[in-house]
Amino acid sequence: MTKILYSLKSIHKIIKENQPSKVCVVTSKQLSKKLAWALKEVEALKPDLIFVPDGETAKEWQELEKLLKKFSLVNLDRNSIVIALGGGTIGDFTGFASSIYLRGIKYINIPTTLLSQVDSSHGGKTGINFLGYKNQVGTFNLPLAVIIEKRFLESLSEENIIDGLGEVIKTGFIKDPSILSILRRHTVSSLVRSPDFLKIIKKSVAVKNYFTGKDLKDNGLRQILNVGHTIGHAVELKYKVSHGRAVLIGMLQEIEFTESLKLTDPSVLKSLKNLLKHLDIDINNKMNAEWGIIIHDKKVTGSHINFPAIIMPGNAKIIRLDLKLLKGFF
Amino acid sequence: MTKILYSLKSIHKIIKENQPSKVCVVTSKQLSKKLAWALKEVEALKPDLIFVPDGETAKEWQELEKLLKKFSLVNLDRNSIVIALGGGTIGDFTGFASSIYLRGIKYINIPTTLLSQVDSSHGGKTGINFLGYKNQVGTFNLPLAVIIEKRFLESLSEENIIDGLGEVIKTGFIKDPSILSILRRHTVSSLVRSPDFLKIIKKSVAVKNYFTGKDLKDNGLRQILNVGHTIGHAVELKYKVSHGRAVLIGMLQEIEFTESLKLTDPSVLKSLKNLLKHLDIDINNKMNAEWGIIIHDKKVTGSHINFPAIIMPGNAKIIRLDLKLLKGFF
Repeated sequence: MTKILYSLKSIHKIIKENQPSKVCVVTSKQLSKKLAWALKEVEALKPDLIFVPDGETAKEWQELEKLLKKFSLVNLDRNSIVIALGGGTIGDFTGFASSIYLRGIKYINIPTTLLSQVDSSHGGKTGINFLGYKNQVGTFNLPLAVIIEKRFLESLSEENIIDGLGEVIKTGFIKDPSILSILRRHTVSSLVRSPDFLKIIKKSVAVKNYFTGKDLKDNGLRQILNVGHTIGHAVELKYKVSHGRAVLIGMLQEIEFTESLKLTDPSVLKSLKNLLKHLDIDINNKMNAEWGIIIHDKKVTGSHINFPAIIMPGNAKIIRLDLKLLKGFF
Repeated sequence: MTKILYSLKSIHKIIKENQPSKVCVVTSKQLSKKLAWALKEVEALKPDLIFVPDGETAKEWQELEKLLKKFSLVNLDRNSIVIALGGGTIGDFTGFASSIYLRGIKYINIPTTLLSQVDSSHGGKTGINFLGYKNQVGTFNLPLAVIIEKRFLESLSEENIIDGLGEVIKTGFIKDPSILSILRRHTVSSLVRSPDFLKIIKKSVAVKNYFTGKDLKDNGLRQILNVGHTIGHAVELKYKVSHGRAVLIGMLQEIEFTESLKLTDPSVLKSLKNLLKHLDIDINNKMNAEWGIIIHDKKVTGSHINFPAIIMPGNAKIIRLDLKLLKGFF
């Protein structure tokens, strides 16, 4: 099982336990400047430093080849440890490279954004984009540890926080409504200064790990975490909005759809809209997804899709739907 | 667990059990002509046919990208099944692509050479060559089934049979000496016409699966299967001899090395040399491996190597050796 630790200092304990032949840190040039204090913290491990591009461009086939070449150049062996320091793209990308280099070497994920801390760093999904589709190529590869350090969040913009809150709000709606109750006490800016912030991060991480722990390979229960993503992924690709905003847009539209099928209680949409208003998150719900992108979803098999639907706040389930029904609505 | 079946016809049962959304066969153009009868056998499954290059050139980074693109073009989804029809390179390569496409879809391996039937198709090791090193990038990915059809062997050249016999002989020396007793009754050409042939194939497959079943991820016991490969891989790369010949050369040299360390009983080398003479396999033992290639072995961690050594016929173990000892000998 992956260890989840809430302090960067804990990395020394993990390294000591594992006695790697070599340690390497994968990050971006920009982050290495911004997070110089964090690199200083791991300096004693004498890591090789490998730079990859920032943002989604890192997650491309050619960049993967370059990273694997660098792993080979610094002579990583099967007893080495790779540390990913960065947001979700660096984590996904480094986790994937680590899972195929020498058929898999250990890696530690140190996510530096709210989105990656609560979502992508957990559950072992790694991958790259391919032919314009998100995460079409990748593996399930659990990190040795995920280190969540609150200090990384202090320098994030409000927009970056909203990017992560999309997934946090989702975890509230699919499993733990106490997250929603806490969020309702705040605006985005009051939340980040409050002790409630770490509290909802931990709760959200618990929901994510509840589902991934029961279904690592995403064959059933885990697909509930995909609420908001069927439409959200397609919107994100088309409009280049942040993942968190895309998930919120996806949730709003998917709830309208499943409400029309009498699957979702009408209180859900009302509750989500109120919460967004409360938090002062303004969502443009006019964005519409391309059908060709929607049906490229990994939950589609043959003529059907496993569609995760919220039933009531804190309760969601997977419904097997004929794609025609979905097409009729969108 | 992977099913091991000894008739091509059994594929229909497996497909029926799994109800895939789509079936695709990966093979080479050349093989599709040579093995038209086998493609006819799977015709009823209406597979998409994907061609990849023949031989080790298939196992390259650029070819992997092409194969993944083809998977996407024929719209494979997470409920599809990929069938690899060919020798070890096609199996390794297709198994790897299947393990990372959509984070892994099912595949069936139909090995068509003796080497792939007894060795590479079992145990889930997939991969490609990278920066000139063999299988530097890959995964552990067990196929749904391995189908061993003896009919494929009927058209193989004697040299192709020897390629497979290298691994068969190895399994005799590391675990099951009854394989060696049977082999001693034959020359290569008498063996292929005898019912003993299928018998030793099954015994050899059993040895392979004994080790891979106990240690899929190659962290300990499985490394015993690597007897002959530390030197063999390096010889294979340098002299472009077949894998089976390279393993035999590797075994001869490694046994001399471990005998000099008083680890291996002198009867082992004598027994191997006699067997090769009996079978009429002429091995050029003058080939010597490059040190730079030897130390790129996956069994090396830091300054040491996990070296698999034969102790007595049918008995081998892993010895952790300082690399200096190995360097001193080669």
